[in-house]
Amino acid sequence: MTLLDELTAVLGPAGCLTDGLEGAKSDASGTGRTAPLALLRPATVAEVSAALAICHRHRQPVVPQGGMTGLAGGANPGPGQIALSLSRLSGVEEIDPDVPAMLVCAGTVLETAQKAAEAAGFLLPIDLGARGSAQIGGLIATNAGGLRVIRHGTTRDNLLGVEAVLADGTVLSHLNRSVKDNTGYDLRHLIAGSEGTLAVITRAVLRLRPQGPPPATALVALDGYPQVLALLRLAGARLTVSAFEAMWRDYFALNQQLANVTAFADPPAFAVIVETESGDAALGAFLEEAFEAGLITDALPAQSLADARRFWDIREGHAMDRALPHLLNLDVALPVGRLDAFAAACRARLLARYPDAHLSFFGHIGDGNLHIAVDAGSDAAHEVDRIAYGIVRDMGGSISAEHGIGLLKRDWLDHSRSPAELATMRAIKAALDPAGILNPGKVI
Amino acid sequence: MTLLDELTAVLGPAGCLTDGLEGAKSDASGTGRTAPLALLRPATVAEVSAALAICHRHRQPVVPQGGMTGLAGGANPGPGQIALSLSRLSGVEEIDPDVPAMLVCAGTVLETAQKAAEAAGFLLPIDLGARGSAQIGGLIATNAGGLRVIRHGTTRDNLLGVEAVLADGTVLSHLNRSVKDNTGYDLRHLIAGSEGTLAVITRAVLRLRPQGPPPATALVALDGYPQVLALLRLAGARLTVSAFEAMWRDYFALNQQLANVTAFADPPAFAVIVETESGDAALGAFLEEAFEAGLITDALPAQSLADARRFWDIREGHAMDRALPHLLNLDVALPVGRLDAFAAACRARLLARYPDAHLSFFGHIGDGNLHIAVDAGSDAAHEVDRIAYGIVRDMGGSISAEHGIGLLKRDWLDHSRSPAELATMRAIKAALDPAGILNPGKVI
Ligand SMILES: Cc1cc2nc3c(=O)[nH]c(=O)nc-3n(C[C@H](O)[C@H](O)[C@H](O)COP(=O)(O)OP(=O)(O)OC[C@H]3O[C@@H](n4cnc5c(N)ncnc54)[C@H](O)[C@@H]3O)c2cc1C
Ligand SMILES: Cc1cc2nc3c(=O)[nH]c(=O)nc-3n(C[C@H](O)[C@H](O)[C@H](O)COP(=O)(O)OP(=O)(O)OC[C@H]3O[C@@H](n4cnc5c(N)ncnc54)[C@H](O)[C@@H]3O)c2cc1C
Repeated sequence: MTLLDELTAVLGPAGCLTDGLEGAKSDASGTGRTAPLALLRPATVAEVSAALAICHRHRQPVVPQGGMTGLAGGANPGPGQIALSLSRLSGVEEIDPDVPAMLVCAGTVLETAQKAAEAAGFLLPIDLGARGSAQIGGLIATNAGGLRVIRHGTTRDNLLGVEAVLADGTVLSHLNRSVKDNTGYDLRHLIAGSEGTLAVITRAVLRLRPQGPPPATALVALDGYPQVLALLRLAGARLTVSAFEAMWRDYFALNQQLANVTAFADPPAFAVIVETESGDAALGAFLEEAFEAGLITDALPAQSLADARRFWDIREGHAMDRALPHLLNLDVALPVGRLDAFAAACRARLLARYPDAHLSFFGHIGDGNLHIAVDAGSDAAHEVDRIAYGIVRDMGGSISAEHGIGLLKRDWLDHSRSPAELATMRAIKAALDPAGILNPGKVI
Repeated sequence: MTLLDELTAVLGPAGCLTDGLEGAKSDASGTGRTAPLALLRPATVAEVSAALAICHRHRQPVVPQGGMTGLAGGANPGPGQIALSLSRLSGVEEIDPDVPAMLVCAGTVLETAQKAAEAAGFLLPIDLGARGSAQIGGLIATNAGGLRVIRHGTTRDNLLGVEAVLADGTVLSHLNRSVKDNTGYDLRHLIAGSEGTLAVITRAVLRLRPQGPPPATALVALDGYPQVLALLRLAGARLTVSAFEAMWRDYFALNQQLANVTAFADPPAFAVIVETESGDAALGAFLEEAFEAGLITDALPAQSLADARRFWDIREGHAMDRALPHLLNLDVALPVGRLDAFAAACRARLLARYPDAHLSFFGHIGDGNLHIAVDAGSDAAHEVDRIAYGIVRDMGGSISAEHGIGLLKRDWLDHSRSPAELATMRAIKAALDPAGILNPGKVI
């Protein structure tokens, strides 16, 4: 029997497709050009295991695919690779209200899992813009960040247990439900963030939280970065902060205009959205204290959900890609105290190379995470990466705060990790996937 | 040159001791009987690296030693092993108030690090009874839990970056300071909890938190475990909970008497300490709501620090080892909803075997963590373990919530982890320490 015959025998015809695979070419980065040899769609953990065992015997490379919303090309097939989609392995199997936690299949779409949690009276704290397509397995595989990191951590911080299948079909199952478990090496955290190169995630136990009160939101204006840092520290001391998002002047000015909102007619050096679970009264007292301490020059507490939505419209900058045809969005992390120095260095070096470029800065700065919006014309991506990540390296930062390494950042990984670390990662990869069939060419 | 000559040449005479090594025989479990061949005391990361490279060349087994407060025998030397103490590699190198985070050497005693954080206006959220001796490196190596897990997580949850030396002397350094960093495999979480078998930790970046308000505390009485679970859920929804500690009747009755306190003259089925950062008023409202909902039968809000101290005296049970000469303290985790069923099964099986045994239950139940105090006479430890961990296995729990595996729980590790998981752990061990010189015989 050929490889595909073997796979079809195990997965059925609906589980092993070879036609109409356009959608399996690329994740949301839009960089994938190659259709996979076949698209496997196992519907059970046993099928995932059987399919991998067959591919392993044939030394057939396999690329795991979730919701295909990744931004690093991690789920793009290379030539001659087979794609393994988790989409049919989906559903919330159980909600344990006592822990509280959820046992969920890897192919479950995030929004589906969020709604199941909500219906049971809880919050699944993982959230991001791609919630309608991104899958639990993909979120774990990339250790996705998103909108609630400052309050509830990244995906790994909400992962209690995981089940995954190794390259040879071995099932590793540790669907743990306690916060505490010190029984040997933490395989869970090794699999989280490994972007499909160490194992195929099949199920997970995710922490749930109590549903919080509706957030109170304000947009504030500040004169300089030291004030932003001082405000962040004060917010940490006075409030339960659920978002602290800073916009440098250039970003705020452009997106205020694009969003057709006038929050601050005269764009300040920094505009910050502060969102808190502590309520309007506590937010009001905090703003007063910040004003009296000279940290902020203006403050707009949201009077309604619509008000808050307007502030977020500026921050989310949805109209930017229409205004800037060659928009790149870099995603780096540095100690929060150094973000403005990084932005200044980046600006100087990028404008020296591309004097007409658009360049603006914003980020989840409470998490030390800065985004850089750049439009330097067509075909500038590699050179922009080289310049920006070079500065990240020199300042000791991370070239990928949230999006992972995948294919697109692989060449820059040595800017954030040492040769010794890369050698250690390769040793682990070889130990868990000696034939190298799982997502080859990605990450390392 | 002999091995010891080589080591002395690199570390100096003060860095390579061969006399008076009584203190290096055993951790706080008191089970170690063998003095090491030598006790290495490197004072710099470079010395740790050089010492390990020498030992590696000689295929000389090395056991890392921190504050020797471990309870699993993990730091006990085996015959022919050399001990490597981190005590001289100590000190807080930097506090970054913006993140906020602390860069600290592995040999720093926890209490020293806590005080440095406090002096800078922050809280280092890791805390446990052994704070005066346990070292940062040991806390990370065991992923210690402790008193603030329900609020701030275990040690790994507070670890942003780590530096460690592999068996062959290679230094892995990723002293990351952001919450977000998705650059390849998470070596930090692999090293955390590896109990000295994968690498020697030399420095770390730990998260700091704002100093919280003084806690408000109450002791409450409940009629049954369903009420305890309902109270836990209500507390999560209404309060910022910093402790939720349950005592089953037998534990409460004995320790109330031993502590010479009368909180509830008639010991209830369950007594729970609730501690919150939300203040006395919020705690009062919560207790009223719980009372009206029929969850609690009595409540004692602490009127003073001394009151709160009395409640904690009962919970901490310091007088127990005097009252019970052969006291064993088991430390397991299960989904919180199953803890009482586990306690009942344990009680039945242990009393069937040891009809006269003392047996009582208590725990950080907000974390799914149950402790079992057992006195079944001398030499019962192995049989008690066998019975209790057998039930843990059958109920799908963790045989070590906090204390790690070390030597003492190694024989039971397969009760919580599958053969596939153990094989994967061994493959990782072989990849990172192919000669097997780091803490051989421990964990796996
Ligand atoms: C509009 C939009 C907003 C976004 N916002 C954010 C954000 O705020 N924060 C953030 O971090 N990311 C964000 N992203 C990126 C993306 O949503 C995340 O990376 C997400 O985690 C990807 O999930 P997915 O299921 O789509 O994975 P895919 O794109 O299908 O795959 C991503 C990687 O994971 C691997 N993988 C997928 N499933 C599995 C599995 N079951 N087992 C093993 N490996 C698997 C793939 O091989 C690939 O390497 C955003 C993307 C979009 C399009
Ligand atoms: C009174 C008391 C209360 C306690 N309370 C708690 C509690 O509430 N929660 C809890 O989790 N534990 C508790 N413990 C257990 C103990 O304090 C923890 O396990 C602690 O983390 C051990 O730290 P240590 O520095 O003493 O490590 P050691 O006992 O010296 O070593 C522990 C393990 O870590 C390894 N190790 C030590 N340093 C390093 C290093 N730098 N690099 C690599 N490996 C290293 C050792 O080889 C060994 O395997 C308690 C102990 C006592 C005595």
